[in-house]
Amino acid sequence: MLLLCGIDASNPYACILHPFSCIFEGMTPENRLRELGITLPEVPQPLGSYVPFVRTGNLFYVSGMLPLKEGKLVRTGRVGDAVTLQEAIEDARSAAINALAVVRSAIGTLDNVEQCIKITGYIASSPDFTDQPMVLNSASDLLFEIFGESGRHARAAVGVPVLPMNSPLEIEFIFEVRQ
Amino acid sequence: MLLLCGIDASNPYACILHPFSCIFEGMTPENRLRELGITLPEVPQPLGSYVPFVRTGNLFYVSGMLPLKEGKLVRTGRVGDAVTLQEAIEDARSAAINALAVVRSAIGTLDNVEQCIKITGYIASSPDFTDQPMVLNSASDLLFEIFGESGRHARAAVGVPVLPMNSPLEIEFIFEVRQ
Amino acid sequence: MLLLCGIDASNPYACILHPFSCIFEGMTPENRLRELGITLPEVPQPLGSYVPFVRTGNLFYVSGMLPLKEGKLVRTGRVGDAVTLQEAIEDARSAAINALAVVRSAIGTLDNVEQCIKITGYIASSPDFTDQPMVLNSASDLLFEIFGESGRHARAAVGVPVLPMNSPLEIEFIFEVRQ
Repeated sequence: MLLLCGIDASNPYACILHPFSCIFEGMTPENRLRELGITLPEVPQPLGSYVPFVRTGNLFYVSGMLPLKEGKLVRTGRVGDAVTLQEAIEDARSAAINALAVVRSAIGTLDNVEQCIKITGYIASSPDFTDQPMVLNSASDLLFEIFGESGRHARAAVGVPVLPMNSPLEIEFIFEVRQ
Repeated sequence: MLLLCGIDASNPYACILHPFSCIFEGMTPENRLRELGITLPEVPQPLGSYVPFVRTGNLFYVSGMLPLKEGKLVRTGRVGDAVTLQEAIEDARSAAINALAVVRSAIGTLDNVEQCIKITGYIASSPDFTDQPMVLNSASDLLFEIFGESGRHARAAVGVPVLPMNSPLEIEFIFEVRQ
Repeated sequence: MLLLCGIDASNPYACILHPFSCIFEGMTPENRLRELGITLPEVPQPLGSYVPFVRTGNLFYVSGMLPLKEGKLVRTGRVGDAVTLQEAIEDARSAAINALAVVRSAIGTLDNVEQCIKITGYIASSPDFTDQPMVLNSASDLLFEIFGESGRHARAAVGVPVLPMNSPLEIEFIFEVRQ
């Protein structure tokens, strides 16, 4: 059973009193990941001559993540066209899971994440698709489920016409990590 | 009367000698906001499961702001199509005002802004509209009018095909704030 | 002759042991720039009421750079349409060179760059062009050739429908610089 802060699970966003109110013994981010049944994949290979992340001070920049699974896109094309809203919602969650794989591989454990700062989501969109926020919510919700209040982040969501490999979406992340 | 640094108002960008040359007694950012006759609105509600801002150290990230007025877009569609250049210019200023509302709600007063670091403007554009910088200038100019030299920022302006709620534009901001 | 870290030039990415393994006496970034025969241009004029860069602490934000040469675009239009992949690859390198001109003008010498943190590339793309990473590689590769391991960066690459001045691409940069 997933217990979020001991509060009403139907309203997980009620837990806003204190950034660390959700982190009690036995419910670290790594524990929550396990409870959610998520196994982090291998770190996805960059598509070019860059690296998956760079750290400067306590800021940790993650490159634009695609919803790759075992190195492949589950589907391609624009949301509202070839890709449905529901499929895009799954893909945004996959991209976030890939970002977490990058973070853990770099700093050893998700428990060393201090805060999720910002995510920027680029959604390949048909000209009349305007529900980019709904797509990205699955990534945002996952960060909250895993990190609690420390998972809350600023966000920008935009539509784009086309992405690398014809991916339906791409999400970049900035985290603050502990020393 | 709006007096910018006591210099030629026809060339407000001449004031580049010192970051604080524009801030003299009685002309703090909050004072200038008043002189401009701007009343900051309520902080706009996020469109999804994220928060309007996150602070890390002295950096203050504001989520992508739409030109919402009382929770609603004044108009929708792409600039160069349904939306005119002049309308988009008004909208970019509205989005910046919304960002200032977020900043003040978080740190109490705009006088605690040390510097505007960066804005990124996404302009929903018809395929042949290439004046994204002109649209964003109204947001940039407002930051300069309010913060003086501390309002000068780095910027990126890009066209996109479509945005959340079919908004004509979205702007995200990074500020540096005082302790 | 360009000698990259004294290692196999056919695999310049093998040099990953230590961030400074590539910086030995006589091969500073400024030296490498010279060996590559690159003369940095004048800092490009901003297209609006913003500035080419802002520094906060050790972070150095460069505004979105277009592939301007002497203030003009060599070509305009979308990659995959009016602009070929090869032309876009040249343009991405030009945009990176313009960014280096901004950095040097601000901090005196490229030798004071500690790390390239992040680049975001917006590629004006025809609806079926999905090789944005290949376009950006020329910018990423240049940063590696000049800064060695310190040139490695996080990256996001996205397609957009149209950019300021009908530019084929725009790239923004975050660097970490020394005190």
